[in-house]
Amino acid sequence: MIKIAVDMMGGDEAPNIVLEAVEKAVEEFEDLEILLFGDEKQCTINHPRVHVRHTSEEITMEDEPVRAIKRKKDSSMVKMAESVKHGEAMACVSAGNTGALMSAGLFIVGRLPGVARPALVVTLPTVKGRGVVFLDVGANADAKAEHLYQNAILGQIYAQNVRNIAQPRVALLNIGTEAQKGNALTKQAFTLLNESQSIHFVGNIEAKSMLEDEADVIVTDGYTGNMILKNLEGIAKSFGKIIKSTLLSKLKNKIAVLVMKNDIKAIAKQLDYAEYGGSVLLGLDGVVVKAHGSSNAKAFYSAIRQAKIASETKIVETMREKVGENHG
Amino acid sequence: MIKIAVDMMGGDEAPNIVLEAVEKAVEEFEDLEILLFGDEKQCTINHPRVHVRHTSEEITMEDEPVRAIKRKKDSSMVKMAESVKHGEAMACVSAGNTGALMSAGLFIVGRLPGVARPALVVTLPTVKGRGVVFLDVGANADAKAEHLYQNAILGQIYAQNVRNIAQPRVALLNIGTEAQKGNALTKQAFTLLNESQSIHFVGNIEAKSMLEDEADVIVTDGYTGNMILKNLEGIAKSFGKIIKSTLLSKLKNKIAVLVMKNDIKAIAKQLDYAEYGGSVLLGLDGVVVKAHGSSNAKAFYSAIRQAKIASETKIVETMREKVGENHG
Repeated sequence: MIKIAVDMMGGDEAPNIVLEAVEKAVEEFEDLEILLFGDEKQCTINHPRVHVRHTSEEITMEDEPVRAIKRKKDSSMVKMAESVKHGEAMACVSAGNTGALMSAGLFIVGRLPGVARPALVVTLPTVKGRGVVFLDVGANADAKAEHLYQNAILGQIYAQNVRNIAQPRVALLNIGTEAQKGNALTKQAFTLLNESQSIHFVGNIEAKSMLEDEADVIVTDGYTGNMILKNLEGIAKSFGKIIKSTLLSKLKNKIAVLVMKNDIKAIAKQLDYAEYGGSVLLGLDGVVVKAHGSSNAKAFYSAIRQAKIASETKIVETMREKVGENHG
Repeated sequence: MIKIAVDMMGGDEAPNIVLEAVEKAVEEFEDLEILLFGDEKQCTINHPRVHVRHTSEEITMEDEPVRAIKRKKDSSMVKMAESVKHGEAMACVSAGNTGALMSAGLFIVGRLPGVARPALVVTLPTVKGRGVVFLDVGANADAKAEHLYQNAILGQIYAQNVRNIAQPRVALLNIGTEAQKGNALTKQAFTLLNESQSIHFVGNIEAKSMLEDEADVIVTDGYTGNMILKNLEGIAKSFGKIIKSTLLSKLKNKIAVLVMKNDIKAIAKQLDYAEYGGSVLLGLDGVVVKAHGSSNAKAFYSAIRQAKIASETKIVETMREKVGENHG
């Protein structure tokens, strides 16, 4: 039985989408047990494998992360993280305040020995549909070269365990493919990665080739990673707006688009982050999954499934072992 | 008469596209004179306002930038830059090796007094078609906060003179909109920009909103800017590939796309960097324009037009005056 703690109160459309996702997950997986943290009066689920734990507080999107974690002791997010800390649950999932969840991971769940800075990882859709593991997308904005090296180790284990890629190709995100390119940080990180025996390092990769299936893991600092992730999200929307306003002003185009409707939906699905679950905070003594704040039930369900796979494949245990090894 | 120096030998399809662009430019603008640097045997233009200056060397894409500028003294790029240095031409345009052109700008044309680091600027297409000035996209990969502040001054002048926006809204690219967000660099830069009397600072902007017409000038460091620019270029292509392979596998979709063909072309034009000319190296004692390496004749023509506008609006003189003023 896999036990996962879930924050019922986090996210734009909580608790409704959370409840819907939890119901789907326990129906789908017979070996899944959910600890559901939140306001019991709002819980509509009655299922033998869903255990509601009542909490009286909520952390909002406006809360200052560290302060919220320290003061709102009876919030659904804090209690959920504590259940992982105490070994009651193997993993936790929340669509709430990202900064607060990172703080809960850091201060409540705690870092693995040897991990200098946890990293937030996502899987991006790629042209051939293989997907690429990308980190850090926002945990550590002022990274040093050794943090980038550690990100490579964490990302490699994630790709092996969760994405089932035996020997992941690891690349460093940079502003040129040649070894000497980049800023001071990436130049140093390149040297560390290039000298490593434990990483299958394939060199620098440029932001224009990220989705071209040239690597399985792409490593960067939390500032650049967050920037690129938001750029990917936003640009698709901006392009969509331009295309819509130009194309759909004419009837003939409206009809043409109608003809392609189902196939356009299929493409949207291929590019949909929801299909790939949430982002995972790596380097902690437990699995902490962040579902997107604007998650729908499907996206939150994917995040639960992702937490389950990470737990089953013992990602935390592997990291404890490998990071210790590479830390010497 | 506006005199512009042009590198005939730079770019993937030089000299053909350069010659075509120069011919179009002198036909279009009666007050334009071109100094054309390159192999005179390859020049097919015979026009009273095009003066060919023969050079015997070429800087290639593989050349190490600084070394190439220092050793290939009779290259088209070096001679072109010297003509700006000596005041013979007001501006120069090349589609050659970007690093070499930046070095030529720095070491031959020279920095304006008070400019710590030149910055490379581009204009990006936006949703409403207004366009946004974006810098630095690659001149200074390890920037300090005061460089970002100076980029704001340079970008503001560029938007005023070249893009004719009286009071440009200047934003700082960051990983959150709140004042305290970002890495050490952007936090410091935010404070400098926020305290400035001479900049209409509208705060942080996220990478997802860059093309949404929320600012007229967006400031960042050369590492992040280059990363984002390449991401924009590449992602559009990757999305295009995914869409093509899914949609065009069916006949009905092929027909539907055919119906929309002209309108799709119009959109491509709106998003086309070629329409906005090249990138400009700001902060130098002369106008240095970099046309994209894979420029076609239209893109190179746009770059020449851009150099002409920058010269006519006396952008260098304005910068000399304003940067001196803000340097105190």
